[in-house]
Amino acid sequence: MPTPEGRARNEEIYHTAARLMVQRGYAGTSMGDLAKAVGMTKAGLYHHISSKQDMLFQILLYAMDELEEKVIEPTGGIADPEERLREMIRLHVCGLFEHGLEFSLLFQERRHLDSDQSELIWKKVDQYLGLIRKAMRELKKQGKLRELDPDVTARHILQTITGIARWYSDDAGVSQRRLLEQTVNFNMAAILK
Amino acid sequence: MPTPEGRARNEEIYHTAARLMVQRGYAGTSMGDLAKAVGMTKAGLYHHISSKQDMLFQILLYAMDELEEKVIEPTGGIADPEERLREMIRLHVCGLFEHGLEFSLLFQERRHLDSDQSELIWKKVDQYLGLIRKAMRELKKQGKLRELDPDVTARHILQTITGIARWYSDDAGVSQRRLLEQTVNFNMAAILK
Repeated sequence: MPTPEGRARNEEIYHTAARLMVQRGYAGTSMGDLAKAVGMTKAGLYHHISSKQDMLFQILLYAMDELEEKVIEPTGGIADPEERLREMIRLHVCGLFEHGLEFSLLFQERRHLDSDQSELIWKKVDQYLGLIRKAMRELKKQGKLRELDPDVTARHILQTITGIARWYSDDAGVSQRRLLEQTVNFNMAAILK
Repeated sequence: MPTPEGRARNEEIYHTAARLMVQRGYAGTSMGDLAKAVGMTKAGLYHHISSKQDMLFQILLYAMDELEEKVIEPTGGIADPEERLREMIRLHVCGLFEHGLEFSLLFQERRHLDSDQSELIWKKVDQYLGLIRKAMRELKKQGKLRELDPDVTARHILQTITGIARWYSDDAGVSQRRLLEQTVNFNMAAILK
């Protein structure tokens, strides 16, 4: 269990490393580049992280932990499935803005993980998609859901959220508040009768 | 104007190069790797393409030309905006399957283009988003559109389409036909009253 200072330092390292890997690509970033960016010697960085691949894995794990803490846990107790799904989408978009678009963009490098690492990350993503599908099943029981394929629809919802990292910038001409509201409304309109 | 044989050869080169760049990342792919993958000498490849950056640019240009030819032109004459937008989404998803998910995934490397190249690709993407927004404006005049932000909504629609390349595989457990139909329906339900 890291101390609060240790945790804050880890977060800082993960964010800086993620930004660099997104900018240059995984293959274009060396451990030397990463050490320099986070203000450590290479030996110092190797004390925390065993390899570049390990760095990628630790960042993606951290991003999934954040999703758990900031989106999944706070919404788990909401009984109404419509309200729960709205809040999941809202908190996920909030998290993108607060915790960095770079984590979302880094998932495109997950092919560089080894198969065990990849499987673990994949399992966590699938658990999250499972929560979206569960809300849809409950909505269906209430007679509120359109006729749709829950697997494909959960993917589409997730792509509208994570896709924000691919096109949004401060000069995109839309406020974060409006984008939040529009993303919730777009997806709920797509699935509700 | 290339001959049909020349065109077919170019397409083959672009697809192979795109697949390799997506697999290894732009930074992780050398001109030597590209030449080997397309079965040419490095000197032979330099006869067609001046640099790795030029290769990336030519592939993205070609992908936008394909979008023009396979999606924009065939739908330009459809008077009814709802029918036109449905057909645009349908043909775009068809194009992803027929012309390769690798082109869609390669757009994530567009940060490696120089600013003139980037601006040209960006302009073409924005023209396409403009056609989606235009269909929505026409739907609004007909009183069929929900209250929504057309800029954000055009982005969300595009992300559900291009996002397919990020999660779809032959073992995804959904047929291409069903995915096509679901993607059209999801987006139309999201925007229509």
